[in-house]
Amino acid sequence: MNKLNIGLIGYGNVGSGVIKFLQSRREFIKYKFNLELNIKAIADRSIHAKKISGLEKTRLTTNAQEVITDPEIDVIVELIGGLNPAREIVENALREGKHVVTANKELLANFGKELFTLANKNNRSIYFESAVGAGIPTIKTISEGVAGNKFNRVYGIINGTCNFILSEMTKNRCSFKQALEEAQRRGFAESNPTLDISGMDSAHKLTILVFLALGKFIKVEDIYVEGITHIAHTDIEHAESLNLTIKLLAIAKKDPNKQIEARVHPTLITKDHPFASINGIDNAIFLDTYPLGDILVSGQGAGQMTAASGVVSDLIKLASMGKGHPPILSNITYENPNITIKKIDDIRTKFYLRFMASDKPGVLSKITGILGDHGIGIDSVTQKTRDTSIVPVVMLTDYTPEKMVRLALDKIHKLPIVNSKPVAIRMEKL
Amino acid sequence: MNKLNIGLIGYGNVGSGVIKFLQSRREFIKYKFNLELNIKAIADRSIHAKKISGLEKTRLTTNAQEVITDPEIDVIVELIGGLNPAREIVENALREGKHVVTANKELLANFGKELFTLANKNNRSIYFESAVGAGIPTIKTISEGVAGNKFNRVYGIINGTCNFILSEMTKNRCSFKQALEEAQRRGFAESNPTLDISGMDSAHKLTILVFLALGKFIKVEDIYVEGITHIAHTDIEHAESLNLTIKLLAIAKKDPNKQIEARVHPTLITKDHPFASINGIDNAIFLDTYPLGDILVSGQGAGQMTAASGVVSDLIKLASMGKGHPPILSNITYENPNITIKKIDDIRTKFYLRFMASDKPGVLSKITGILGDHGIGIDSVTQKTRDTSIVPVVMLTDYTPEKMVRLALDKIHKLPIVNSKPVAIRMEKL
Repeated sequence: MNKLNIGLIGYGNVGSGVIKFLQSRREFIKYKFNLELNIKAIADRSIHAKKISGLEKTRLTTNAQEVITDPEIDVIVELIGGLNPAREIVENALREGKHVVTANKELLANFGKELFTLANKNNRSIYFESAVGAGIPTIKTISEGVAGNKFNRVYGIINGTCNFILSEMTKNRCSFKQALEEAQRRGFAESNPTLDISGMDSAHKLTILVFLALGKFIKVEDIYVEGITHIAHTDIEHAESLNLTIKLLAIAKKDPNKQIEARVHPTLITKDHPFASINGIDNAIFLDTYPLGDILVSGQGAGQMTAASGVVSDLIKLASMGKGHPPILSNITYENPNITIKKIDDIRTKFYLRFMASDKPGVLSKITGILGDHGIGIDSVTQKTRDTSIVPVVMLTDYTPEKMVRLALDKIHKLPIVNSKPVAIRMEKL
Repeated sequence: MNKLNIGLIGYGNVGSGVIKFLQSRREFIKYKFNLELNIKAIADRSIHAKKISGLEKTRLTTNAQEVITDPEIDVIVELIGGLNPAREIVENALREGKHVVTANKELLANFGKELFTLANKNNRSIYFESAVGAGIPTIKTISEGVAGNKFNRVYGIINGTCNFILSEMTKNRCSFKQALEEAQRRGFAESNPTLDISGMDSAHKLTILVFLALGKFIKVEDIYVEGITHIAHTDIEHAESLNLTIKLLAIAKKDPNKQIEARVHPTLITKDHPFASINGIDNAIFLDTYPLGDILVSGQGAGQMTAASGVVSDLIKLASMGKGHPPILSNITYENPNITIKKIDDIRTKFYLRFMASDKPGVLSKITGILGDHGIGIDSVTQKTRDTSIVPVVMLTDYTPEKMVRLALDKIHKLPIVNSKPVAIRMEKL
């Protein structure tokens, strides 16, 4: 029987989930993988206030360093989150010759390159399946499942809170505010939901997908980020009538000139794509690869046990590699030096545009005139007559550089016939 | 730089795809994985008649045994398919101390247990990503991506030919025959398509999913298999109007009593499930796991390069394990001795039933009477009036044992008011 001695740092929601998982699946893991996953020590600031059962042989301490320096421990599982002291804990663990398993996307987004380099130097590995899409095997699919392929495009629905809110708005025809309250009521959104609804959490995760799939460590600041707070129910309705649906997507592409674009924003996609059926707190990634083709992986992207599952699969993987064997992910630090990052201004997408305009003759001509002046082609126009003096004009554009759309919308906004700030939502063909 | 010396047996469609893949991705694999995948020898019966370029350092032979016994070769890639001589080749390779990569589902379905046992005995591994869903990481997802979880249910759309035909029938409102001809015209169906359209190819693949996910080597004969040749377009239309769609599913479940059911048949699923959007030659698997929850993996399930991709990812994985290291999949031969197989008679599902009946009073009462006598509850009935004397009566049943449905349908078929053999299609709630 192989044995992996584990030091767990952080006994919160996910940490206690890992213990629960190992307790309920211990016998199975023993017979299936010939492996004992032994929790040798747990460090947590308030460990002594927490109820822990069935771990009589586990050392419980408030001192993380004590766990890190235990010579019998093979791997440190870091589950405290945030940048500090998580960064120091991971660095110290690697220097002590421990492998690391972490679910900390913020840490990897900000210091991934430094940490993987340090791991390489010490001939140790960092596994991080639960950092993106919790236990859904997003990381293993990109780095191993389709190993050897080139990635052209990566799309992710990687924030369960936002996906739940947009699904609720679609299903229950409610406002963003009402959907957010429902998410909070059901425990799918924090009391301060900013990190999620601003798109920043998705941006952290996207940096990880970019270095895995596209071979470049980008910074969160390199990503164009737009959250979902401004999404109105009326736009979801207009989208529905065009057979489209709105998702918060994390998007990364590499063009033939090795230019990368990376962005997070609400996105219109066609309803016949499997991504349109990813609802509630589910997460998904969609990969356009060469020569394999398209791959989609989806599942529950949030929750204690799904995050715990990703950690456990990492531990089993680590054990399977054999002690001291430098695993394949070590080469993660390779960067293609020719890759550059595209500015958001230069990115070309199709747009959904909505103008609230006076119901007068000539309005359409004025709006389309300005769009035409900026080289923006129109694929379709819908103008619904209503019993009001202000009516919505909805247009779908052809592929257009971001910059031109912004300039045109600024001009249109200033027209006296246009009542409020034009709404622009990007579209993607997956 | 690590180096893996490969002996390729079988230079057909997939074999030449592997060479193409390695030639176009060689530099990437070198820098990303610090790995040279070296094709040292290729054996193929008609190798000398084939055009092979860029392989000047590769030995080309018609003699497989010569490749298997080459002491410098680390891994044999078996891509000839079928049972013989593939079985002998794989056995000899393992006995010679080589690892094996294969895409041969028929071989694994029939002799998987024996071959994995032999591999274990020789401390070698068999990798087989391309045996199910070609290069889509179905095998790696089950055995590693969600390692440690329990699998309750496994669903697969794992035959591209059938999925293409059913998609065509749905999209183009055509008959099975017309859709099959289109599949053949586009190279998605063999000139003798029996293995695919009979469901047998899916059954081979299902045995693999069952031993990976449910821990039991079952025989193809243990699987209830029903193909798609009898699917009429009218049933697809009725399904559409009920917001359902028809897919050929491979289904395996394990109940709390450790009873397994395994079956392949056309299946009605709701259109809002991502599986309903898996169209054309795409494949997908859907896993209901504990405690992780649901996982879906989909992508192109057929084609030279996608199958080649699965083989290459297996080779990269093998290299990452280090030479001689017994990999995690070795424990694949473990079987839970308490698992038994459920008979199709005892399986309970919901059914879609269609009767072509005389448009006379009392017809519905007679049909529902017989169903009721067999304990079959009805969820919904649709009877459309037409300008003909024979009208379709469509019913959705509650969960019902297979046996009772068969008995009831036999009786109903004998009613003078029923014009043709009743149609029964099983439904599943994914």
